[in-house]
Amino acid sequence: MSSSTHPTVNKASVLRPGGSFYYEDREVPALESDRDVIVRVMATGLCGSDVHYWQHGRIGRYVVEQPIILGHESAGIVVSRGANAVGVEVGDRVAIEPGIACNTCTACRSGRYNLCKDMRFAATPPYDGTLATYYRVPAECCYKLPGHISLRDGAMVEPLSVAVHGCRLAGDLQDKSVIVFGAGPVGLLCCAVARAFGASTVVAVDIVAARLESARKHGATHTYQMSAEKSPELNADALAATAGVSDGANVVLDATGAEPCINCGIHSLAQGGTFVQVGLGRPNLSLPVAQLCDKEAVFKGSFRYGPGDYKLAIALLDSRRVQVDGLVTNEFSFSQVEEAFQHVAGRGGIKSVIYGPDVDVEVANQSA
Amino acid sequence: MSSSTHPTVNKASVLRPGGSFYYEDREVPALESDRDVIVRVMATGLCGSDVHYWQHGRIGRYVVEQPIILGHESAGIVVSRGANAVGVEVGDRVAIEPGIACNTCTACRSGRYNLCKDMRFAATPPYDGTLATYYRVPAECCYKLPGHISLRDGAMVEPLSVAVHGCRLAGDLQDKSVIVFGAGPVGLLCCAVARAFGASTVVAVDIVAARLESARKHGATHTYQMSAEKSPELNADALAATAGVSDGANVVLDATGAEPCINCGIHSLAQGGTFVQVGLGRPNLSLPVAQLCDKEAVFKGSFRYGPGDYKLAIALLDSRRVQVDGLVTNEFSFSQVEEAFQHVAGRGGIKSVIYGPDVDVEVANQSA
Amino acid sequence: MSSSTHPTVNKASVLRPGGSFYYEDREVPALESDRDVIVRVMATGLCGSDVHYWQHGRIGRYVVEQPIILGHESAGIVVSRGANAVGVEVGDRVAIEPGIACNTCTACRSGRYNLCKDMRFAATPPYDGTLATYYRVPAECCYKLPGHISLRDGAMVEPLSVAVHGCRLAGDLQDKSVIVFGAGPVGLLCCAVARAFGASTVVAVDIVAARLESARKHGATHTYQMSAEKSPELNADALAATAGVSDGANVVLDATGAEPCINCGIHSLAQGGTFVQVGLGRPNLSLPVAQLCDKEAVFKGSFRYGPGDYKLAIALLDSRRVQVDGLVTNEFSFSQVEEAFQHVAGRGGIKSVIYGPDVDVEVANQSA
Amino acid sequence: MSSSTHPTVNKASVLRPGGSFYYEDREVPALESDRDVIVRVMATGLCGSDVHYWQHGRIGRYVVEQPIILGHESAGIVVSRGANAVGVEVGDRVAIEPGIACNTCTACRSGRYNLCKDMRFAATPPYDGTLATYYRVPAECCYKLPGHISLRDGAMVEPLSVAVHGCRLAGDLQDKSVIVFGAGPVGLLCCAVARAFGASTVVAVDIVAARLESARKHGATHTYQMSAEKSPELNADALAATAGVSDGANVVLDATGAEPCINCGIHSLAQGGTFVQVGLGRPNLSLPVAQLCDKEAVFKGSFRYGPGDYKLAIALLDSRRVQVDGLVTNEFSFSQVEEAFQHVAGRGGIKSVIYGPDVDVEVANQSA
Repeated sequence: MSSSTHPTVNKASVLRPGGSFYYEDREVPALESDRDVIVRVMATGLCGSDVHYWQHGRIGRYVVEQPIILGHESAGIVVSRGANAVGVEVGDRVAIEPGIACNTCTACRSGRYNLCKDMRFAATPPYDGTLATYYRVPAECCYKLPGHISLRDGAMVEPLSVAVHGCRLAGDLQDKSVIVFGAGPVGLLCCAVARAFGASTVVAVDIVAARLESARKHGATHTYQMSAEKSPELNADALAATAGVSDGANVVLDATGAEPCINCGIHSLAQGGTFVQVGLGRPNLSLPVAQLCDKEAVFKGSFRYGPGDYKLAIALLDSRRVQVDGLVTNEFSFSQVEEAFQHVAGRGGIKSVIYGPDVDVEVANQSA
Repeated sequence: MSSSTHPTVNKASVLRPGGSFYYEDREVPALESDRDVIVRVMATGLCGSDVHYWQHGRIGRYVVEQPIILGHESAGIVVSRGANAVGVEVGDRVAIEPGIACNTCTACRSGRYNLCKDMRFAATPPYDGTLATYYRVPAECCYKLPGHISLRDGAMVEPLSVAVHGCRLAGDLQDKSVIVFGAGPVGLLCCAVARAFGASTVVAVDIVAARLESARKHGATHTYQMSAEKSPELNADALAATAGVSDGANVVLDATGAEPCINCGIHSLAQGGTFVQVGLGRPNLSLPVAQLCDKEAVFKGSFRYGPGDYKLAIALLDSRRVQVDGLVTNEFSFSQVEEAFQHVAGRGGIKSVIYGPDVDVEVANQSA
Repeated sequence: MSSSTHPTVNKASVLRPGGSFYYEDREVPALESDRDVIVRVMATGLCGSDVHYWQHGRIGRYVVEQPIILGHESAGIVVSRGANAVGVEVGDRVAIEPGIACNTCTACRSGRYNLCKDMRFAATPPYDGTLATYYRVPAECCYKLPGHISLRDGAMVEPLSVAVHGCRLAGDLQDKSVIVFGAGPVGLLCCAVARAFGASTVVAVDIVAARLESARKHGATHTYQMSAEKSPELNADALAATAGVSDGANVVLDATGAEPCINCGIHSLAQGGTFVQVGLGRPNLSLPVAQLCDKEAVFKGSFRYGPGDYKLAIALLDSRRVQVDGLVTNEFSFSQVEEAFQHVAGRGGIKSVIYGPDVDVEVANQSA
Repeated sequence: MSSSTHPTVNKASVLRPGGSFYYEDREVPALESDRDVIVRVMATGLCGSDVHYWQHGRIGRYVVEQPIILGHESAGIVVSRGANAVGVEVGDRVAIEPGIACNTCTACRSGRYNLCKDMRFAATPPYDGTLATYYRVPAECCYKLPGHISLRDGAMVEPLSVAVHGCRLAGDLQDKSVIVFGAGPVGLLCCAVARAFGASTVVAVDIVAARLESARKHGATHTYQMSAEKSPELNADALAATAGVSDGANVVLDATGAEPCINCGIHSLAQGGTFVQVGLGRPNLSLPVAQLCDKEAVFKGSFRYGPGDYKLAIALLDSRRVQVDGLVTNEFSFSQVEEAFQHVAGRGGIKSVIYGPDVDVEVANQSA
């Protein structure tokens, strides 16, 4: 596919404050610096946060006050590059890291750019996201996809990077026992990454049996169906019995943000264990803090992804140590944005993807 | 003082299940292994946990089901030693590390003996504590006191080790901003240790103004009097304004276990900050978990002390980088055990010490 | 096999100072503590250090001054156990960790028992090794073999633990490039472990082409045949070109101790890379120290193995992420001890194993 | 002092390839980006590397092929700033971090900007240094001096940051024993920083007795005069006896790059110790590698400074935990550049400083 075939307009799906979508032609983004790259967006996965902005108009302190383009899990094709966009060529099939850090503040210079206060993150107000024909990023935010990964599946690199980040925060996982709460896209990918990182036991937990089936295909060695009737302690006991982790798990990753899950998870931790909170839930939750003290456990918040996470996510795909096959269960054309959001809001399937404007679906689904 | 002057009986103060104390002559402990040491207990500080066992008969899963000797913050004089008690001599003035680990389980062999499941910890049921004439420990649990530290103040090495452990869990403190909640003995010592470890700002927080005065003498550079009327957020704002930490503190150490303090503390954390829970409170607490995620913060339970903590506590005293002067505010003879417990229960003074049976107070108060 | 079938004598192969072997019946070891275990030694791998003691009578400060039993890479069957030998049962097929640490010194209590100064290590003077019918160890030194690993191959757990320790010292290996110098048993196992730990590139280096063939079977993704004619720099350039690591390797593991290899390795390191010295060579070597500074690289000595290494080695075998098939190339009966040493001294094969006295080879070669 | 009083010309001292200096008027640097800052250079310390370029025309792969301005240890006054130069104001008295990183490569984004391959480092060919009236840096390279530090002493922040970086690489220094080889400016500052970081023992080592006197004033608790006649082992034994570190030192910092020092240092390391190579010496050195293995020690190259080092250096000065008084022993006006270089080449004094062109020495020597 030559770059000459790309559209000359930049169609965008825009969310109005209040919660309705409309389509608009925006200016085609131009290179602002010689390190910039313009990517034609081929596929965008929908994330819970996108749906949350649509339904509630805000997440914490981020409020939709102006029309905003949503979408941040995207893959595409490079259509132009600045003279100094090192490592990126026109025509490259790339995953887009959707956060543009300032690179000069203390957090950025210390290797924690995900904590940059000047971060311009796609689809986090007031910054536009990727549900458009084109998106501009600096070269360091473009990562070449392995040849065998389609552009559609390339949209999965973003949630995979979330999982990679969470698993890395958990420390060395070789021969460790890991419990993952939530078998949605991020939870499934946490299972897969934990297993690829050497965990000997990976227990997927969800309240929906069907999701646990998927977990078996993505690295879980055991599954446990949480019971809404049981207390966290009883769920923890039943889980331990099922998975054979009677001394508790070395690591718990929570991808739900739900109080019962987090409570069960802390009760399930081994002495000296590590809990990583990957998903975000309600602002305040009741936790068994005494358990954390008694076990000298560590509870870590995990925020997006940072240095090396995208690169490692790509490497896991490249070496086929992690598979994303089967994660994209629902596909929508760009004319179906609202339909796609409704579908996700209804909790259908695992991951829904919206193709970019005027995208040839066949191209988006083939390997390089 | 020659060892010949030590008593031939082993008087003990024993807590009956139900909560009353009585005195009893116990057998003088004998060396069981060639690495054992018998210490004459000269002074024992009272800890909140001692008082809790007296008042409530249990702490979590530890229940006073048999008569038990309380006390675990002790210093004394070595009166006999096994042939292989390396580094300990009869007559040594020592601080006693009151937890006897198995030394062979996975936790012990991995350098986390505080997580040993077979730990025999003084005054944690069913193991007797140190409120007696004599106490037996293996050589590795005896630490020589610096000459300028009296045996009375030597009892402070235990809470100092708790503070050292908590501060070490917080990571590198050089030029960091630290907030310490609670200006009781452990909180004050956390202030002192954080400052000795290079923190540039140490904010002591308490609801009692008088305690904050003490904090100024033990390393706090700023103080903040919590208001029971304010929300955690408003307390955090006022605290930040007082202490000049508008971007939040790098580290928070909580020595209260109280929900309002922990909430205020988490709101006071900087991006990427670390919270260490040193004190133990109610089993379940409501926490602003979303804050921990958003800031990618770490919340760590701190449990007692582990490898190197006692040694470092002693070194801080030896080099006078930490002072314990003024911490012992109340002294009791061994005949006043119940009175001492009542005093501590009434939250009087900072630290109360009970001298061992038949101890010459003058000896216990002098330097070597 | 019931324990009643085990021999009642303890035959040993003893090295005389001066370098000749003789056979001797030693007392059958008895349980000294209730945590002790007596293992019937079924197979023992020979290590370069065994041969070195035989040929040179010393390694550094360790000198053969009294008759000594060599051998320390062993697997066997538990024939008796103390009442408190937790986790070990009579009849268990086990790998023996051959170093008995004091468990109470500062190094042991800090999680670095391999640095224990009172370590009693098998076949390191003056401590006897495992070339005998029976060997006594405490329970924590026995590790159950996976069912599919024969006792013969169980002797490989020791060198595998050396490789595990070295690779763990190298830090996170996910998606890293690793060069391993030396394709003998430890080098091959370093390749296998590095690959299991997620290294994307593993370059095996040796001067003997045939060994590089083996490396391909044990995890190496690339091989490089060192040229004795080339300078370290030129070898490094050629290696980088062969393996596609033009910016240098993130990690180098040296299992040779040879000056040309270590020099080539340091020249091959990437900026910020880590070098782990697994093998031991001559006391003094000329190194390109300026390279280490310029790259801010880290050079680590690796000494035996420590907490968790045996357990992880077993887990890697259990999950078949590491294979030891094909490593044992030469097998000797206990009557052929000297022949076995001569064979190893002549650098024949990869790993030579000596079966224990009166061992039924068929039993030693079958899975559980 | 108002900015209007600053010169309108940019005088520079330029080194010709071949080794002679000349003065030249260069264009006054202009702000290139809105984050840039122009600093009037008030004082510049001379470093061994400056002298080495003058005498030898190269350091490793960095060759003086074009005329170059030397000097990189500088403090000055901000005379202009871009609109977005966060945290910097005109008139600020600042220490200049002389390395301008790309901020976008993998090393920079990972928190290791000192390993940036596109680093433009002052006075490292082909980049000009600070021996001129003006120097341009981005805002993140300007650090406000504490009020009590003169601009002259502010030039010491650069070598202090080198010491801070080396000491941080050594890990936690609380209660550790540290040996510092070399009592020149960097070695003395390593002593001071190690002590400020909590080392209980700091042994300064040099061959010149007079320098050891200075070390006592900068944090050394012990000194040892190396003997050129003794072997590294004998020097290590004598050093250990002098300083009371019979089990070896936890940390050795070498600021000499000299083979006998590094050898003595490795022999002086404790089991599990850490060696940090701060100074740079000849490309190849003979080292007792077997010692590093046997002790499982770590040898780290230290390269310049990275995230947080300048900030921490300033904080150490601000809190007066490190003093630089007395380090500047020789002062030269800008007309005496060659004289200053000759003085340093002759190894006179501790640190020589050259004032910027037309600098009022009184201003450069006063506090704010």
